[in-house]
Amino acid sequence: MSNPFFKNCGPIKVSEIIRSLNINVKNLSKDKEIHDIKDLSSSENNDITFFHSKKYKDVAKNTKASLCLTTDALKIYLPKSCLALVVENVLVSTSKITSIFYPDSINDDFDDNIMSIDDTNFKDKVIFGKNVLIGQNVTIGNNCKIGHNTIIEKNVVIGDNCSIGSNNIIRNTLVKNNVKILDNCVIGKHGFGFFPIKNKNLRYPHIGMVLIEDNCEIGCGATIDRGSMSNTIIGKNTYLDNQIHIAHNVKIGENSIIAGQVGIAGSSIIGKNVKIGGQAGISGHLNIGNNVEIGGGSGVIRDIPDNKKVMGYPAKNIREFLRDNK
Amino acid sequence: MSNPFFKNCGPIKVSEIIRSLNINVKNLSKDKEIHDIKDLSSSENNDITFFHSKKYKDVAKNTKASLCLTTDALKIYLPKSCLALVVENVLVSTSKITSIFYPDSINDDFDDNIMSIDDTNFKDKVIFGKNVLIGQNVTIGNNCKIGHNTIIEKNVVIGDNCSIGSNNIIRNTLVKNNVKILDNCVIGKHGFGFFPIKNKNLRYPHIGMVLIEDNCEIGCGATIDRGSMSNTIIGKNTYLDNQIHIAHNVKIGENSIIAGQVGIAGSSIIGKNVKIGGQAGISGHLNIGNNVEIGGGSGVIRDIPDNKKVMGYPAKNIREFLRDNK
Amino acid sequence: MSNPFFKNCGPIKVSEIIRSLNINVKNLSKDKEIHDIKDLSSSENNDITFFHSKKYKDVAKNTKASLCLTTDALKIYLPKSCLALVVENVLVSTSKITSIFYPDSINDDFDDNIMSIDDTNFKDKVIFGKNVLIGQNVTIGNNCKIGHNTIIEKNVVIGDNCSIGSNNIIRNTLVKNNVKILDNCVIGKHGFGFFPIKNKNLRYPHIGMVLIEDNCEIGCGATIDRGSMSNTIIGKNTYLDNQIHIAHNVKIGENSIIAGQVGIAGSSIIGKNVKIGGQAGISGHLNIGNNVEIGGGSGVIRDIPDNKKVMGYPAKNIREFLRDNK
Repeated sequence: MSNPFFKNCGPIKVSEIIRSLNINVKNLSKDKEIHDIKDLSSSENNDITFFHSKKYKDVAKNTKASLCLTTDALKIYLPKSCLALVVENVLVSTSKITSIFYPDSINDDFDDNIMSIDDTNFKDKVIFGKNVLIGQNVTIGNNCKIGHNTIIEKNVVIGDNCSIGSNNIIRNTLVKNNVKILDNCVIGKHGFGFFPIKNKNLRYPHIGMVLIEDNCEIGCGATIDRGSMSNTIIGKNTYLDNQIHIAHNVKIGENSIIAGQVGIAGSSIIGKNVKIGGQAGISGHLNIGNNVEIGGGSGVIRDIPDNKKVMGYPAKNIREFLRDNK
Repeated sequence: MSNPFFKNCGPIKVSEIIRSLNINVKNLSKDKEIHDIKDLSSSENNDITFFHSKKYKDVAKNTKASLCLTTDALKIYLPKSCLALVVENVLVSTSKITSIFYPDSINDDFDDNIMSIDDTNFKDKVIFGKNVLIGQNVTIGNNCKIGHNTIIEKNVVIGDNCSIGSNNIIRNTLVKNNVKILDNCVIGKHGFGFFPIKNKNLRYPHIGMVLIEDNCEIGCGATIDRGSMSNTIIGKNTYLDNQIHIAHNVKIGENSIIAGQVGIAGSSIIGKNVKIGGQAGISGHLNIGNNVEIGGGSGVIRDIPDNKKVMGYPAKNIREFLRDNK
Repeated sequence: MSNPFFKNCGPIKVSEIIRSLNINVKNLSKDKEIHDIKDLSSSENNDITFFHSKKYKDVAKNTKASLCLTTDALKIYLPKSCLALVVENVLVSTSKITSIFYPDSINDDFDDNIMSIDDTNFKDKVIFGKNVLIGQNVTIGNNCKIGHNTIIEKNVVIGDNCSIGSNNIIRNTLVKNNVKILDNCVIGKHGFGFFPIKNKNLRYPHIGMVLIEDNCEIGCGATIDRGSMSNTIIGKNTYLDNQIHIAHNVKIGENSIIAGQVGIAGSSIIGKNVKIGGQAGISGHLNIGNNVEIGGGSGVIRDIPDNKKVMGYPAKNIREFLRDNK
């Protein structure tokens, strides 16, 4: 995935990288420049990558990265072209280095580099309410409406014929055409991702964005977090009811229907034509197939194959659920 | 129910109706004028109605409507005075025709026909905060307060002694006396009602309103959707805690107490003196009796008679639930 | 607990107290002045207290209060130094008397005694967005940010290095250092506490505050209610995800992690290092130990000892839950 929004501050000198990790490494040309941080498979020569679990050892063997954050036990899997930087906690170190390349991706303070829409070129193009604010790096298509008190923070692209309601806050988000976002939503903030550390947790970077495809509708009070290393995606013509929470890296297929107060935890993938009843919750890192129907109030804690209808907590076949609960 | 807010654009010529349905009908006086669209029982002569399920055949036999959207199989139940318009999907067609009579009832874009309260007559009557906006067709009683950034959009009546907090958005809503609405609520938007159509869902009209009776309190972050063909009603002295979602057409009786994060799906009827614990969910189209108590976290998927105490998912007798889960 | 925010309007004459209770008491020096209302154990001479349940009889025996709201059956436990005021409903009467001492603690109308931050001394100290409002009795530390449309109402202390997002409403809250509050939160409003009375419920006073300790993060759309007689507390370095509801008097220990859409009902105590999965709900008045892990979607209705992992509704040992639901 290439994200249009977060600027890569690389190249970064090796000396700066090892200084920030507070480690010593022999045989290292400290003036060498590293271009980017990527995962094992997409790294190129002169990139740094990370390798924290044996299950990725086959990918590690073929990485093209020049440097790799890893452990003493795992470094043997790396090719000769890739120098291991042995660290205590690979993910924490990855977080630190990512934040050097992408410093903007951690800090989600309010956007103070913003102006009233009245003072921008959008004032002649967009139908807008009172007190609308527009940040840097914003594009808005034709025939759009933006309601009162809505804040379009930095890094937002809005397509044609979109209707954005009032009191919304949007950043790091790509909205395609004919999308409707109702009121009171917060879209594009970082997700709930951090390393728990006593007395002072460490936030990791979120360099993904939120992508809302054509013809979607997002209900009132939604929170849709942007991705950490990938994007959060709402597929074409998918409708979300009120008070829904979509965590970082979630991907929802097209033509899905999601009722009120549903929550989808981080990195779960939801198929096409999926129907989810009110207040259902879906755990993180799950795969929910196409045409799946999930009853209201369900708690989904396992993958669901295509075409299944489930209900319950934990969710199971809906007939079984209803039979067991007559 | 007669709704004071949505203007009927009728009469509409028969020719316009059949053109929008893209059908051919013989023996039709195309210049005839149709006054309104109503359900089978409340239609009058010169109205159009709809009939989509055999279970309404007895009502259909006696309808006074002049036209009826229906199917080939059902048209035989209509009286001679009522001409059948046979369509592929009765509800979709009903939606189309309703939107001709009530075009304002589908589109819930932000209200841009609005002004600062400072520029209205309310400025001498209401105690109000900064950045309060008032739309068209708004009435406000004596001794009311309206907090900062609150947007009273079009079609709102507020009684006496009401306290509206900050950051609220209200439209198509009738608020009676001594009502308290806290902060961040969205009240009176259309419900989550549409026909799922591949690539482009079709919203159906919501010509109902939200009615909030005397002495109610609505907690922070509530979403209360207006009704589609009837009203959404919060009964007298009913208190809602924070983050509650009330879907379209729901009716809640008086003196009820609803704890935080509860969700009530569309068209369910809740009795008087009902207590609902936090995070409970109630499916759509249910009847919950008077004096019912629903334990926190319950998922209610069946009707509940008067005076019952239930808990669980699905909700059952609370003693049984506690006994089964020692 | 001593609350820095609510001003005690005492001393109040005994005559005013008995008049508001609409009772007659013999042998009472009506000109005597009562200084405060406190619970049985913390009352001092010349305070009024309340005693509504036999389970407090041992504390009652030693109260130093001069007056006590109680019942005919319970008054025998009071010491001679404490005169019983026998009332029909002790808690309702307590509520009435508390509201005489602390009239500001019941009414949570929007704060209209507020000004634009541009017109305050904070304008040179704080980095702030558009339309930021500041109430009376507010203190803000060094290096703080306050986002657009955020309303810091009366009685708020914010420490150093805090980042407050946009569209928040905060009152009666003490925020320590390095705290991050994202967007759309309502913090410090009264809780959902009242006496249900037909046709017109009676709200009781909330004289507690919200206390957010160092290094916390509060996600978007949170509602955190202030305490009634004690404080609502979020412990050091505890992180809350989006759309969380924390009711009045809840206390959460340090280093806890609470995922999206969780709700915690009134007066529950959560330990340190607790992890709570998304959409879990915790009933009121429970004790959850240290290092407890609660699975997503759980409904907790009983106390949980230290170090337990639970899941389910009602929540039970997580292994048992998973085994029973294979």
